[in-house]
Amino acid sequence: MSLRIATAGLDLMAEALHAQGAEVVAVDWRPPAGGDPDAVRLLTAAWADDRIEAGNREAVARLQAARPMLVGAGRAGDLIPGLEGRLVLHAGPPVEWERMSGPQRRAARAAVVMEGWAGDLEAADAALAAGTVALAPCHSLGAAGAMTGIISPSVAVWVVRDEERAVTAWSPFCDGPGEAFWLGVDSPESIRRQRVMAEMIAPGFDAALRARGPVDVLALCAQALAMGDDCHMRHQAATMLLVREVLPAMAEHAPEAVLPTAQMTAGNGHFALTLTIAACRAALQGIVGIPGCSLVAFISRNGTDAAVKIAGLPDRWFTAPAPLVGDPLYRPGFSDADAAGDIGDSALVECAGLGAAASACSPSVAAFLGGSLQDAIDRTDLMASIAPARSERFGIPVLDGLGTPLGVDARLCVELGRTPLINTGILHRTDGGQIGAGVAQAPLEPVRDALAALVGALGDT
Amino acid sequence: MSLRIATAGLDLMAEALHAQGAEVVAVDWRPPAGGDPDAVRLLTAAWADDRIEAGNREAVARLQAARPMLVGAGRAGDLIPGLEGRLVLHAGPPVEWERMSGPQRRAARAAVVMEGWAGDLEAADAALAAGTVALAPCHSLGAAGAMTGIISPSVAVWVVRDEERAVTAWSPFCDGPGEAFWLGVDSPESIRRQRVMAEMIAPGFDAALRARGPVDVLALCAQALAMGDDCHMRHQAATMLLVREVLPAMAEHAPEAVLPTAQMTAGNGHFALTLTIAACRAALQGIVGIPGCSLVAFISRNGTDAAVKIAGLPDRWFTAPAPLVGDPLYRPGFSDADAAGDIGDSALVECAGLGAAASACSPSVAAFLGGSLQDAIDRTDLMASIAPARSERFGIPVLDGLGTPLGVDARLCVELGRTPLINTGILHRTDGGQIGAGVAQAPLEPVRDALAALVGALGDT
Repeated sequence: MSLRIATAGLDLMAEALHAQGAEVVAVDWRPPAGGDPDAVRLLTAAWADDRIEAGNREAVARLQAARPMLVGAGRAGDLIPGLEGRLVLHAGPPVEWERMSGPQRRAARAAVVMEGWAGDLEAADAALAAGTVALAPCHSLGAAGAMTGIISPSVAVWVVRDEERAVTAWSPFCDGPGEAFWLGVDSPESIRRQRVMAEMIAPGFDAALRARGPVDVLALCAQALAMGDDCHMRHQAATMLLVREVLPAMAEHAPEAVLPTAQMTAGNGHFALTLTIAACRAALQGIVGIPGCSLVAFISRNGTDAAVKIAGLPDRWFTAPAPLVGDPLYRPGFSDADAAGDIGDSALVECAGLGAAASACSPSVAAFLGGSLQDAIDRTDLMASIAPARSERFGIPVLDGLGTPLGVDARLCVELGRTPLINTGILHRTDGGQIGAGVAQAPLEPVRDALAALVGALGDT
Repeated sequence: MSLRIATAGLDLMAEALHAQGAEVVAVDWRPPAGGDPDAVRLLTAAWADDRIEAGNREAVARLQAARPMLVGAGRAGDLIPGLEGRLVLHAGPPVEWERMSGPQRRAARAAVVMEGWAGDLEAADAALAAGTVALAPCHSLGAAGAMTGIISPSVAVWVVRDEERAVTAWSPFCDGPGEAFWLGVDSPESIRRQRVMAEMIAPGFDAALRARGPVDVLALCAQALAMGDDCHMRHQAATMLLVREVLPAMAEHAPEAVLPTAQMTAGNGHFALTLTIAACRAALQGIVGIPGCSLVAFISRNGTDAAVKIAGLPDRWFTAPAPLVGDPLYRPGFSDADAAGDIGDSALVECAGLGAAASACSPSVAAFLGGSLQDAIDRTDLMASIAPARSERFGIPVLDGLGTPLGVDARLCVELGRTPLINTGILHRTDGGQIGAGVAQAPLEPVRDALAALVGALGDT
């Protein structure tokens, strides 16, 4: 008779048994939260509370059912309620001018010049420092932006509406490689691009959308995943699909917009990124406020701080210092010493089944990061280990259509000591501009703090 | 001491040894050409002749180096030398009107009406039967077409030029789903589409190409493979990449062409197929005439006959009856009884590293055919077993960039009893129109006949 033995976590025992010829199945078990007693106590309470499980089930159902539609585009000042007076919105949690990261300051001051609120960049700095131009997070008005995420009234934005939960979300148009607000560049060219987008391209999209009707953004993302996008670091297919959807109506109803749109989209494979961000923000806003829900609704960084909002605690951000982006690939001549901290509201897409969750969809991103398809599948598997469900909408072609991991459960993050990976770019710390890309990891501390606060709040009721 | 044994082909022996506890590596060996003595004699001569090996090496080098560029578009009658008088070109080898397949006859007679050579379809039939309108293969004038492949002077064609070998090739624009010449539909709508393409869309592309310069077609295909196309049955990405490349110049220099182009390409995921065909034809024409070369240059079907041209014998087609398409998926209500024989010049792309050779690039095509990614990889592996090389240009994302099988060696086809698979559509036998899709297999007989003729010709010199 031969022994069949399962061991859990203790590799030394498995090796010893294996050396003695026994058939051993080693299960990768570790004590939850590394055995930390406070965390174990927190998790015990969190797993025991049926209200959390019920809230999460409701949240997953809402995320599966969400259908955010691109309904319009135009000037932020005309479209975002509350964007009034001399106000500049930015990615990430609230941050004072003094603590704001270099690239975000640069994009903010360029916006101030563009709006005519200051005559030059130095005067813009002074106005922002003095508070005569105010700052607020994009999220404070229901918007979200990529990288610096700067929105002032003259910035072009997408309007996405999820009728399912009556949520609207906005995101600034992605202004391309090189001299661009989203990358923290404050040049005349970056201002010129904003004007072209607000005055020509966005009105063209808006006219086309009015004529043809709204575009189902997450259905478009699902197609893009089947074409090698991860819908965070790569949006080549999504951008082309968007143009294909809208071009006939634009050519008919706003022909003057076709040339600038063609020029902008042909040279900007990230163009559809912020549309995805707006759509995911709308879907995720639909779970914010579900009682007891331990899913991470938003991950949001401003280059200085990284913040997390948990769905069951709608009014609080939990923050930690923004980490540097991991596994970095830098342009020649740049290193960690030049890198700004992780930045942008875009990491919310990782909470909605895209980005790192969809890594296995994009061998191209894997190859860009210097890895193999298996590395990409491993990243998706890691996201699956902290996800409560699989998307019914986003299939992974190389896994014969298996859904991407959907949602991020703070309980699983704390238990496994894992947080969402974020496929993202890297900006220069002081000069702005993109100097590389890599995979950031959201800090664990604010996720644990958020879960503790949720469990505490449930205990009080 | 334990035995390590390799067995070749004889599974019973491997199983018996395995049952006795020996470590067995089973090699899948079969006698060449099923042990047929004539074929074994042919292969013995073919493998012994250094001129064949040298010719094939040269052919592979030329295929790797070919760089067919899209240089223009317009009316076939203005662009294809020799397309003069009342002449209609068709896919496949030469065929008389009486033996021509139903869909090809329908498209041919619609072209005759469009040209004004007959007042209606019946009169067109009569003119074609009487020979007052002549028929000739596309290949006879350096062109190649998808499915029916009908070209008359007013049909819009792509012009592709490979300066490397000074070859030009042409292919008719793909006129979309439903009522289309390439699908054998002879309706007023199919004629209207041809007019729109020749009078509006093709001139728009031509103006754009003049302004921006040529497009590297196989580089575009390489990008499309990374986005889930196989570049035969699926051209979604290639079509969008083509539009992205050309749209800025078109919007600037031929704005009137944008609307019809947007409408045609938004609704026609196969639009770039015939551009790929023209480019592959140019690349493959570059190996035609290499002394001793046993690579299959063209596979060409007209719904009645299937034909093969081997590169070392530039002036001969070897034919067999066109098979039905295998693994068929039919629209509801259709069956094999309704299916025309395998049709189109498109199978030449399988000789150039695309289509079935690139099956593993397209989980979408695999899923459409009802299979898994592994089935798609198996199809690519089968193509690799008869290919002399791997493409240095076309990478397979799910195999971490491994090249697609490039070229088809008639020697390997005969030895293994295998011929190229062809990812293709199925037309209605009498009525025209697409009724399904599947994977055709080129017949072995003409490949063996071609190899025998090549070896015979080498023996005479």
